[in-house]
Amino acid sequence: MKDFSLYVITGEQFYPERNYLEVIEEAINGGADIVQLREKKKTKRELLDMAKHLKDLCVRYDVPFIVNDHVDIALAVDADGVHLGQDDLPLEEARKILGPDKIIGISTHKLEEAKRAEEGGADYIGVGPVFPTITKEDVVDPVGLEYVREVVAHIRIPFVAIGGIKLHNVDQVLEAGAERICIVSAIVGAEDVQGAARAFASKIKQVRK
Amino acid sequence: MKDFSLYVITGEQFYPERNYLEVIEEAINGGADIVQLREKKKTKRELLDMAKHLKDLCVRYDVPFIVNDHVDIALAVDADGVHLGQDDLPLEEARKILGPDKIIGISTHKLEEAKRAEEGGADYIGVGPVFPTITKEDVVDPVGLEYVREVVAHIRIPFVAIGGIKLHNVDQVLEAGAERICIVSAIVGAEDVQGAARAFASKIKQVRK
Ligand code: NI
Repeated sequence: MKDFSLYVITGEQFYPERNYLEVIEEAINGGADIVQLREKKKTKRELLDMAKHLKDLCVRYDVPFIVNDHVDIALAVDADGVHLGQDDLPLEEARKILGPDKIIGISTHKLEEAKRAEEGGADYIGVGPVFPTITKEDVVDPVGLEYVREVVAHIRIPFVAIGGIKLHNVDQVLEAGAERICIVSAIVGAEDVQGAARAFASKIKQVRK
Repeated sequence: MKDFSLYVITGEQFYPERNYLEVIEEAINGGADIVQLREKKKTKRELLDMAKHLKDLCVRYDVPFIVNDHVDIALAVDADGVHLGQDDLPLEEARKILGPDKIIGISTHKLEEAKRAEEGGADYIGVGPVFPTITKEDVVDPVGLEYVREVVAHIRIPFVAIGGIKLHNVDQVLEAGAERICIVSAIVGAEDVQGAARAFASKIKQVRK
């Protein structure tokens, strides 16, 4: 897969008065280089509509577009891939449906899950939640920076640190060894979305150069 | 598709102390000839597990197995088809993903929806809710027997009447012209599941012979 460093995820609760396409486009203009559709309260049909529009946007900017959970929606819009949690369709089943070329990302909360995802052929893993977060409904206890360090030491596929990462704590995550960061509310919920994305992107750039 | 006349749907709330496979097998033994997996509160992974087991059961009895809503789960277990509501993935998208051979059923609540489903290539439609029901979470107002009669008059693909149908009111539905009946709680929630299925099956048999 095309490498990425700043992963953004939709979350309509963070921009109730704004259009998601505008918000995501600003994030991309600020440096977000992969986009995920994740909305837990929408119907399939609403998700499909969002997915079509986001896919078009992402194609225009040559940025991978990932659908959370719904492999069927990913197929319907020919998304670049899916992101699956530990309670979603297992990696093996999703791979069978999507074929070898689609990106499959897996949320992991401990090294055992990370290893299983790596061995199972995941294209990347999510590592977190690093810090406490209210973004996801069913909140998992934060795993802390220690888990980031473990992944750096033991896992070879790309990983993206996620969960409660803000401008004031992102340096710790980067120092722990993360080279890819996923941000939700601190970008899409920011007053200046593009500026927020740019701030994170430049932090990441410093450690990656 | 293989014709059917007595459609049963899972619903773990109706048999909290029983295993769903036992319940569905009893329903089949009583005369149910098509089975749908519909559970609104399960994770994808739980659904996948149920779908695998139900598919095996249905293969054993040569009864079609349908998955509600989740086209990806249907693909993963090679189910015979999917059943889609008006808020789920649209028929056209599901057909693209599933191909021409899989069964696609569509819930309809008015003639306009029924016609659209027929024109779009649905294999069957659900017609209801005929009577008030608490089976589905987001309850739609009952459409009554009048809608059943309209469908009989105007729609050519198979339809299955659904919603609040019990032994004491099934005759009205059959008299209105339905030849296929979907039963949830009155079968899977019955104390004698097989006996309940047999009672409905024999009612249907009388009108179909
Ligand atoms: Ni779903």
